[in-house]
Amino acid sequence: MSAFQTHIPLPRPQPFRSRSVCRRCRAPVRSVAQNAAVSSVKPSQKPASAQSQSITPRHEDYSQWYLDVITAADLSESAPVKGCLVIKPHGYAIWELLRDKLDSAIKASGAKNAYFPLLIPQSFLSKEAEHVEGFAKECAVVTHHRLRADPDAPPGTLQPDPDAQLEENLVVRPTSETIIWYMFGRWIQSYRDLPLMLNQWANVVRWEMRTRPFLRTAEFLWQEGHTAHADAEEAHDKAREMIQVYRDIAENWLALPVVVGRKSPSERFAGAEETYTIEAMMQNGWALQAGTSHFLGQNFAKAFDVQYKAPDGTKQYVWATSWGMTTRMIGALIMTHSDDVGLVLPPNVAPIQIVLVLIFKNEKEQELVTSFAKGAADRLREVGIRIEVDDRPNMRPGAKYYEWERKGVPLRMEIGPRDAGKGAVFAAKRLGGKKWSIPVDDAFEDNAQEVLTEIHTQMLENARQRLMSRTSRPSSYEELKQSLGQGGESQGFFVVPWKCDDENEKKVKDETKATLRCYPMDEQDDVKGRTCIYSGEPATHMAIFARAY
Amino acid sequence: MSAFQTHIPLPRPQPFRSRSVCRRCRAPVRSVAQNAAVSSVKPSQKPASAQSQSITPRHEDYSQWYLDVITAADLSESAPVKGCLVIKPHGYAIWELLRDKLDSAIKASGAKNAYFPLLIPQSFLSKEAEHVEGFAKECAVVTHHRLRADPDAPPGTLQPDPDAQLEENLVVRPTSETIIWYMFGRWIQSYRDLPLMLNQWANVVRWEMRTRPFLRTAEFLWQEGHTAHADAEEAHDKAREMIQVYRDIAENWLALPVVVGRKSPSERFAGAEETYTIEAMMQNGWALQAGTSHFLGQNFAKAFDVQYKAPDGTKQYVWATSWGMTTRMIGALIMTHSDDVGLVLPPNVAPIQIVLVLIFKNEKEQELVTSFAKGAADRLREVGIRIEVDDRPNMRPGAKYYEWERKGVPLRMEIGPRDAGKGAVFAAKRLGGKKWSIPVDDAFEDNAQEVLTEIHTQMLENARQRLMSRTSRPSSYEELKQSLGQGGESQGFFVVPWKCDDENEKKVKDETKATLRCYPMDEQDDVKGRTCIYSGEPATHMAIFARAY
Repeated sequence: MSAFQTHIPLPRPQPFRSRSVCRRCRAPVRSVAQNAAVSSVKPSQKPASAQSQSITPRHEDYSQWYLDVITAADLSESAPVKGCLVIKPHGYAIWELLRDKLDSAIKASGAKNAYFPLLIPQSFLSKEAEHVEGFAKECAVVTHHRLRADPDAPPGTLQPDPDAQLEENLVVRPTSETIIWYMFGRWIQSYRDLPLMLNQWANVVRWEMRTRPFLRTAEFLWQEGHTAHADAEEAHDKAREMIQVYRDIAENWLALPVVVGRKSPSERFAGAEETYTIEAMMQNGWALQAGTSHFLGQNFAKAFDVQYKAPDGTKQYVWATSWGMTTRMIGALIMTHSDDVGLVLPPNVAPIQIVLVLIFKNEKEQELVTSFAKGAADRLREVGIRIEVDDRPNMRPGAKYYEWERKGVPLRMEIGPRDAGKGAVFAAKRLGGKKWSIPVDDAFEDNAQEVLTEIHTQMLENARQRLMSRTSRPSSYEELKQSLGQGGESQGFFVVPWKCDDENEKKVKDETKATLRCYPMDEQDDVKGRTCIYSGEPATHMAIFARAY
Repeated sequence: MSAFQTHIPLPRPQPFRSRSVCRRCRAPVRSVAQNAAVSSVKPSQKPASAQSQSITPRHEDYSQWYLDVITAADLSESAPVKGCLVIKPHGYAIWELLRDKLDSAIKASGAKNAYFPLLIPQSFLSKEAEHVEGFAKECAVVTHHRLRADPDAPPGTLQPDPDAQLEENLVVRPTSETIIWYMFGRWIQSYRDLPLMLNQWANVVRWEMRTRPFLRTAEFLWQEGHTAHADAEEAHDKAREMIQVYRDIAENWLALPVVVGRKSPSERFAGAEETYTIEAMMQNGWALQAGTSHFLGQNFAKAFDVQYKAPDGTKQYVWATSWGMTTRMIGALIMTHSDDVGLVLPPNVAPIQIVLVLIFKNEKEQELVTSFAKGAADRLREVGIRIEVDDRPNMRPGAKYYEWERKGVPLRMEIGPRDAGKGAVFAAKRLGGKKWSIPVDDAFEDNAQEVLTEIHTQMLENARQRLMSRTSRPSSYEELKQSLGQGGESQGFFVVPWKCDDENEKKVKDETKATLRCYPMDEQDDVKGRTCIYSGEPATHMAIFARAY
């Protein structure tokens, strides 16, 4: 079933209800400024603490909301290097959970991990014509291997040592096709060496001019898979297989529904013959490319002269793929699931899946709830649930809730003396809805696990409803242009018949700011007999246009 | 108990016996060239395959032996960038197993993972006087952010675009103290923000002139921990705690016995007030620094103006540590455990812990052993043992054994029709010794696990015996010099009374090529009343001198 063929009426994602009085402990829920947990901020010199900043509502300024959620959840911070990011522990822990799952999936697909050098000889870049076109204009160039004191400047000032200029400049890898294909040339001799399937977890640098945390940064973290095959079809199958691996991770691990499609020629990876993509829809209706897998044909094999001896004794160029997923997925998570209160994390990648908040007024109560909570937490930990016990004594429950909500913890369990007394916890989903009591009985772990699964399903369903309800099929270019021009609620994915044409694609982009996101795999049967929405000529594909990050 | 206080007679590590006829299958064990598994090598163009190269014996040329073991086990290969390494799947898998264990230990110590930028402003380096001294002379300098076609050169030739010169040069991190302390300055305001303990898994670049795979490369992988504390003693304790974490990993995970000690001032990390080290001894008696932990005092806090408000309201500079362990540990593993046949891996970091080699002569036998082996392998996999089943039909058992021995697989299980018939496997340790039959009965998994544990213990014990037997206490500088001058069996650790003195240390190095490895923690009680072996003045420390990598 295509994501576009059903039109279920849209239940809007349930917003998290804010309350002026906590329904549990009856404490007044304080305003943002009052809720500050860290009071020693020196605003003149130091950045505001995560806890003391309010979050701009989405409807007011979506871009600012995104930045505010990141700050409030303490995920990352700008580095003193243009366009670079410091990924803070809470953000990095999300990446680790995504990475570990993706790593297993990649290994299960038959690829093995390896590591190739960060620095690539400048001349390698130019071996593949499109590749150099794509990457030379945005790469960091290493020209020297030593700094020395600058004799013409104040003491302590450094300059590159002219005696340490490199014979050949090096670039910091923007991607590793060139160095990997150089090595493949040394490793591949016979059909028996194929397929060769490697994956690398690495940092890469692309000198982007306009950056945004996680979504577009000069340096980012990713995995890049590179495979070599004896025949074209096998390579092409591998490229398609890996985009499905990404789709599976996006949907079943990150609760991000995606459209699987092929890129138009002008949006392909530099050096690819076919680029497959998964496109996710953010809450503002914009698209975000969430992973790509490329069929590289024989382009890199020819550039690096990688041939194998076939069983019949002839020499053949090998066929290639490459595929990658990056830290931008953290941005996709934020923009898909979070709300005006702050971050909302799907349980699979939540560094803390359940927070147990202890509520007590005196030492006797504290003792009671602490010992009860410890037992409950140990049981959950035992089955692999990631738990945090919040037993801070000098903080109101409301302030604690607020903090964990902003950090995106999917499930909160409140434990007061009455709960401890009757052997239960009081549960609240980050997604909102009625709170309820869960007995700490034999089924406690199973129940907790089930609620987490339920939350994942609910998040995926919410996002899927949005994707469906905001996917439309304008019947004319005018209609498309009008929707794209309006912004706000009218943004989304627009599925139209299209005649593949670089120039027309560029014109649409210039006229509407929307780009051709992909030719969705599940829609191509619809193209028969249709005419291109732009040129009026017979359509070659069904295409999705959208504004995109 | 100090590693130096007992003097058990040395049982030499058991060499792995080579056989001209396989004792199991009676097949003649072929010579190296005959054993080649890949026959399609084109020697004129391509490097020799791992399988077709012989290994230089240790006694002939230890350095060449090291390189040969790496090639034969397919761990890594030189990259086309000076001093850089491609870590191949078998080598990288060892790193993953070490990394995952170390990562858990670091998290258990209270540090959290984060990620800081690769590129550091050039001016940051010079903020700490010793740090710039230590790293400016060997760092990769990024000066441009774009390449363009070179108008004066043949088409396809690139050059840095003069219009894309950076305002401030960036260096590829040689270590991250500077950028991390810049950020710490933004994050630390109050004593309540302390301790702050972060760890980063990253690549770093130090432009080394003389490189050696894993042991010294221009780029390497590591973790670097960075902590900030409110008082000196707590920071100092943390530095000591982390060196014990490294010791524990080295001994109990990698089977590498080490000496824990402090570095002399001249061997300290650039910017540290105290450097703790673990020093391992390689098979040739040379030392290898296997991990360091630094007490940085307030040096970086002062360089980056990081102060906290104490409970009494005063402002104080914070106290710091940093600590790291790198991919050079793979080199340490090789040089400690391997033999003239090839790699020997301790079970904890062996990507394949047990290989099941199937032996059959016809289809009927093949069916029998395959189905039996599958059952046995599944049971071992079930309990988390890393298994490979070698069922290649067109390869003699002897050649298979040879291949897995070179790859360092700790335990081999041979399964022929007779074994399958009686429900057992025939086991051979990579360390050598008599082969024996293990029944595939209820205790099969437990037995297999036990054998792996035994192998670890045996490897640790062998290495410990070597460390002890090759640690000596020369009574005069002449005696020390003579031992160091002889090479071969006379190399080792030399424990001597020493008066801490940079200049004398340098003189000893010039005269003997040995360096002061450390002041071993467990030996310092012995210094009382002794005189320095070099200066004749009252000794301040017991010191270990040794040749080192």
